[in-house]
Amino acid sequence: MSSDSDRQCPVDGDIDQQEMIPSKKNAVLVDGVVLNGPTTDAKAGEKFVEEACRLIMEEVVLKATDVNEKVCEWRPPEQLKQLLDLEMRDSGEPPHKLLELCRDVIHYSVKTNHPRFFNQLYAGLDYYSLVARFMTEALNPSVYTYEVSPVFLLVEEAVLKKMIEFIGWKEGDGIFNPGGSVSNMYAMNLARYKYCPDIKEKGLSGSPRLILFTSAEGAAPFLVCATSGTTVLGAFDPLDEIADICERHSLWLHVDASWGGSALMSRKHRKLLHGIHRADSVAWNPHKMLMAGIQCCALLVKDKSDLLKKCYSAKASYLFQQDKFYDVSYDTGDKSIQCSRRPDAFKFWMTWKALGTLGLEERVNRALALSRYLVDEIKKREGFKLLMEPEYANICFWYIPPSLREMEEGPEFWAKLNLVAPAIKERMMKKGSLMLGYQPHRGKVNFFRQVVISPQVSREDMDFLLDEIDLLGKDM
Amino acid sequence: MSSDSDRQCPVDGDIDQQEMIPSKKNAVLVDGVVLNGPTTDAKAGEKFVEEACRLIMEEVVLKATDVNEKVCEWRPPEQLKQLLDLEMRDSGEPPHKLLELCRDVIHYSVKTNHPRFFNQLYAGLDYYSLVARFMTEALNPSVYTYEVSPVFLLVEEAVLKKMIEFIGWKEGDGIFNPGGSVSNMYAMNLARYKYCPDIKEKGLSGSPRLILFTSAEGAAPFLVCATSGTTVLGAFDPLDEIADICERHSLWLHVDASWGGSALMSRKHRKLLHGIHRADSVAWNPHKMLMAGIQCCALLVKDKSDLLKKCYSAKASYLFQQDKFYDVSYDTGDKSIQCSRRPDAFKFWMTWKALGTLGLEERVNRALALSRYLVDEIKKREGFKLLMEPEYANICFWYIPPSLREMEEGPEFWAKLNLVAPAIKERMMKKGSLMLGYQPHRGKVNFFRQVVISPQVSREDMDFLLDEIDLLGKDM
Repeated sequence: MSSDSDRQCPVDGDIDQQEMIPSKKNAVLVDGVVLNGPTTDAKAGEKFVEEACRLIMEEVVLKATDVNEKVCEWRPPEQLKQLLDLEMRDSGEPPHKLLELCRDVIHYSVKTNHPRFFNQLYAGLDYYSLVARFMTEALNPSVYTYEVSPVFLLVEEAVLKKMIEFIGWKEGDGIFNPGGSVSNMYAMNLARYKYCPDIKEKGLSGSPRLILFTSAEGAAPFLVCATSGTTVLGAFDPLDEIADICERHSLWLHVDASWGGSALMSRKHRKLLHGIHRADSVAWNPHKMLMAGIQCCALLVKDKSDLLKKCYSAKASYLFQQDKFYDVSYDTGDKSIQCSRRPDAFKFWMTWKALGTLGLEERVNRALALSRYLVDEIKKREGFKLLMEPEYANICFWYIPPSLREMEEGPEFWAKLNLVAPAIKERMMKKGSLMLGYQPHRGKVNFFRQVVISPQVSREDMDFLLDEIDLLGKDM
Repeated sequence: MSSDSDRQCPVDGDIDQQEMIPSKKNAVLVDGVVLNGPTTDAKAGEKFVEEACRLIMEEVVLKATDVNEKVCEWRPPEQLKQLLDLEMRDSGEPPHKLLELCRDVIHYSVKTNHPRFFNQLYAGLDYYSLVARFMTEALNPSVYTYEVSPVFLLVEEAVLKKMIEFIGWKEGDGIFNPGGSVSNMYAMNLARYKYCPDIKEKGLSGSPRLILFTSAEGAAPFLVCATSGTTVLGAFDPLDEIADICERHSLWLHVDASWGGSALMSRKHRKLLHGIHRADSVAWNPHKMLMAGIQCCALLVKDKSDLLKKCYSAKASYLFQQDKFYDVSYDTGDKSIQCSRRPDAFKFWMTWKALGTLGLEERVNRALALSRYLVDEIKKREGFKLLMEPEYANICFWYIPPSLREMEEGPEFWAKLNLVAPAIKERMMKKGSLMLGYQPHRGKVNFFRQVVISPQVSREDMDFLLDEIDLLGKDM
């Protein structure tokens, strides 16, 4: 048909095209395209989805979570390009070829669900959020107006309300968005908007020079950003003391609790965020320790004067008509910098429904207890050295191979130790036995950062981690 | 266990806790939490996922795409809150209760896959992208470093390369991100960065006052944003003429082709974007007409001096270590304003592999041929009035009920006509027979905007659309 695409074919009622399309009575052609009936083969499509679901179930849900499988099947970029058929061609591939491709994608992907994936601030498999995520993909909603996303908007409202309760505010507002960085950007924009409400009309040039922290430069301080759970060390700022200063100087207090916010679920550990109820805004990512799936990030705002909407509304006429037949206060899309927006609250909601608040609390408690166990084991073992006592689930430590153990801790020692973590990391990736991050930080040479999250992880995995690092590094 | 959570239980090798946990030999307790073995019941979780997948297959993939089913099961917000069990409680719900919840969520959600969902710039079900999206959710990757997302980073590279080819650039760069608005923000930041490379250090206060369009105010113009496919009317700016002006004045030309970019896949229709190869950056969302699933949005940049990285890099030590054992140029995370980022290129890649370039071209051609058909039908029917000849797949029209057909087109006529579309929309939502958007725009009173996308849609659905609007509105 596409060879015919340049021929203009006037529409003139029903054209008899029996010679071209014998099976179609009353076929209608426009620009050489037959318009009758849907053109997709639903049966074949459904069969493909079913077969792929079986593959995903076997190769990811079952196998990728199996501690006896490899965490990754490492290939360097140029080699992996050769192994995968990445090229997009003029003609499509048949279903069996596509299923092979799916199998390859899974095979060479890192198994972030694996009990020995400790590389990032997310890990493990939550069956409930996974189901919610499958539903999201199948329903393909966009969350901006009640008429197209009635359920997902109500779910977001319910989840935000509950998160606000855990922060300790009486009321508030919020929005799920694609990442902690975006949440922090929202907070800065809101604080700036509150400080300079005419910024939407006048732009930045009409505003005084703003800065984030107090200073004596003649600039106007407007926001303090505190962190609850830093990325590398898992450190928590003293929120109460910072809130005192903010109150005194009328500064917006934003708390980046993207990583540490989940401690609020635990009666035992929420003291890490003591004072958070005094914040003006909070970033909190349930896709991290609460395993809601990437991405699930909320920006929560104490203000109830509809600041999000005032700051971000663009009043798109095609979405936010004011003459709708329902209560348009449920059309929350004008609070967002995005237009299309995924229903990320839903997957967290499903997990929360499944586990209950107590189940989420237990997860946090267990992750932090496992962290405690690992710290104590590190202290006992020769060749392992803690960077600092952790406050949270980040355990930062050096592995000191036998050849360095007797050396004085001078410049040569540190220069040599700096090479150890990258070299062990290379070996563990190539072996595929576990994944663990390393980095230098604030003058400290390369050290490992172990992050404990998933309830699939056990004390045995902690022991394995230390044994394996020793095994991989003892000849260095 | 949680009642025990305040008791500090020292770790002292293996503690015999046979009384508490009779089945566990050598149980280790920390802070009252047993650390042995994983605590999730994998079998039960897998069973839940399997049952939910069957439900999704039946109720969404099969039923929600059936033209004989309703597009939506409308309930006003307060009533829907009563029908759904939204509350998150201390204790979790059993699997059968969760499956009921899933069924309710599906039942009351809008079926954006339905052949008669014409409400937004996305619609329909693509079986291939759906499979890719299920895989994404199961694998739960974040795309920032090669070590954690080897396959997805290579796929993104391949897809960007191909999209750049269709724009007509010899080379370029790009990034998938969560939405056209975010793409546009990227473009403005890049243009600004190129104009004021010290903006990252000095901030906006150190820069001249910038504006987006030329003016005589003494400000510094730096960017022109053209649109290929506006949201309401589907209008295309004359890119070649705009590019002439930009070239003459050394302005960055950004083209927002979020909606219209997909016409580039069609040899017949790509002339709508004639001149796009002269742009400095392009926003293009394959989740719209190419049905890749929300969200799938690329910002493409002609510059090859690594502008994205220069503009956005934060050089996080825990991700972008320079002493890694592989080619770190594959760690593209420092090009992004996000840290965690979803592998959105992958779902578009899967569809492209399945259909081939020719299959994607056929989809675009068919959607535009169906639009053409609808326009011609509107012209023939009494009571329907086109707003304008469409350039693309947005067909904007008024329905004029019999009571207004003889009236002169004066202020009273327009005031009355303004009430018609909202009233018909209410009736169609409550009946659930189709979904179609309406809005006022640039002095025109409320009109319908019909968007044709999906290959599941046929000429019969176009006829139904007009019949149904007439049926719902003829007594007005």
